[in-house]
Amino acid sequence: METLEAIFTRRSIRKFQDKKFDEKMLLEILKAGMYAPSAYNQQPWQFIVIDDRKLLDEIPKFHPYSNMLKTAPLAILVCADLKLEVAKDMWIFDCAAATQNILLAAHALGLGSVWLGCYLRDERVKGFKKLLNLPDHIIPISLIPIGYPSEEEKKVDRFKKDRIHKNKFK
Amino acid sequence: METLEAIFTRRSIRKFQDKKFDEKMLLEILKAGMYAPSAYNQQPWQFIVIDDRKLLDEIPKFHPYSNMLKTAPLAILVCADLKLEVAKDMWIFDCAAATQNILLAAHALGLGSVWLGCYLRDERVKGFKKLLNLPDHIIPISLIPIGYPSEEEKKVDRFKKDRIHKNKFK
Repeated sequence: METLEAIFTRRSIRKFQDKKFDEKMLLEILKAGMYAPSAYNQQPWQFIVIDDRKLLDEIPKFHPYSNMLKTAPLAILVCADLKLEVAKDMWIFDCAAATQNILLAAHALGLGSVWLGCYLRDERVKGFKKLLNLPDHIIPISLIPIGYPSEEEKKVDRFKKDRIHKNKFK
Repeated sequence: METLEAIFTRRSIRKFQDKKFDEKMLLEILKAGMYAPSAYNQQPWQFIVIDDRKLLDEIPKFHPYSNMLKTAPLAILVCADLKLEVAKDMWIFDCAAATQNILLAAHALGLGSVWLGCYLRDERVKGFKKLLNLPDHIIPISLIPIGYPSEEEKKVDRFKKDRIHKNKFK
């Protein structure tokens, strides 16, 4: 799929087919995350693939917007690793860029996904810390359920000319 | 350009040809930013296109990694607009996703760009606030110089198998 087409047609998918996708696609998606730009090229990320049904079913107990996990074959938890930090605190941006690459790669491969925010929401961060027994230096940033979509990706028009300014604001 | 190819071949470009690119490409790139996912679909962004040479030349005085602006025809300042906030503080992720879409769109169109961090660095935020006389609710998040590249985008291998974990960390 062409890059601009992928960007313009990607939508959040919250309903998935009862069908797994292959390991090769998963690796390609994870690789896309790893090719995100990062401050000082610090690549401060770790990716936890969650496909254990028991774990997936625990997440909605502490993450209020994650009910779609009941039908998702797996989810990727993008984490910051503070031991890899070079540029103080900038891992928040790096992990967001990795998340966006993962969403686009999944879409380009015919899969659906959705970005669930974790970081900056204490109860979600604590929930993942406990569920996965994460060490102190591993911070969950975003969770991305991925699978074959069972809902249509409706076209939207998000272009807003009034958000563009030239050399000054307004 | 195919989506995965764009993700895997995009590199930071810091040297630009002395050549402008057309308005149509710029609008396509800005549109790519606007198609990023956002928390509650809040779309909390504003984009300031800076092509005034005097303004571009002021930026390296307060942003330590922006010397490449001397050869860039323009830069896009991605800002969060706090008046558009629905999900508290989550605009930091939304603007990061918009930034990544802009980098990929520019690359797919044959242009080069680089992500310069602004937010979380007080002197840079203050610098842009002053330079562009930004109101309180407009927060500069990232600056993206864009132009025709005059350096090669070298291939890199960023895939690291040891960053992938299954159902637990390590």
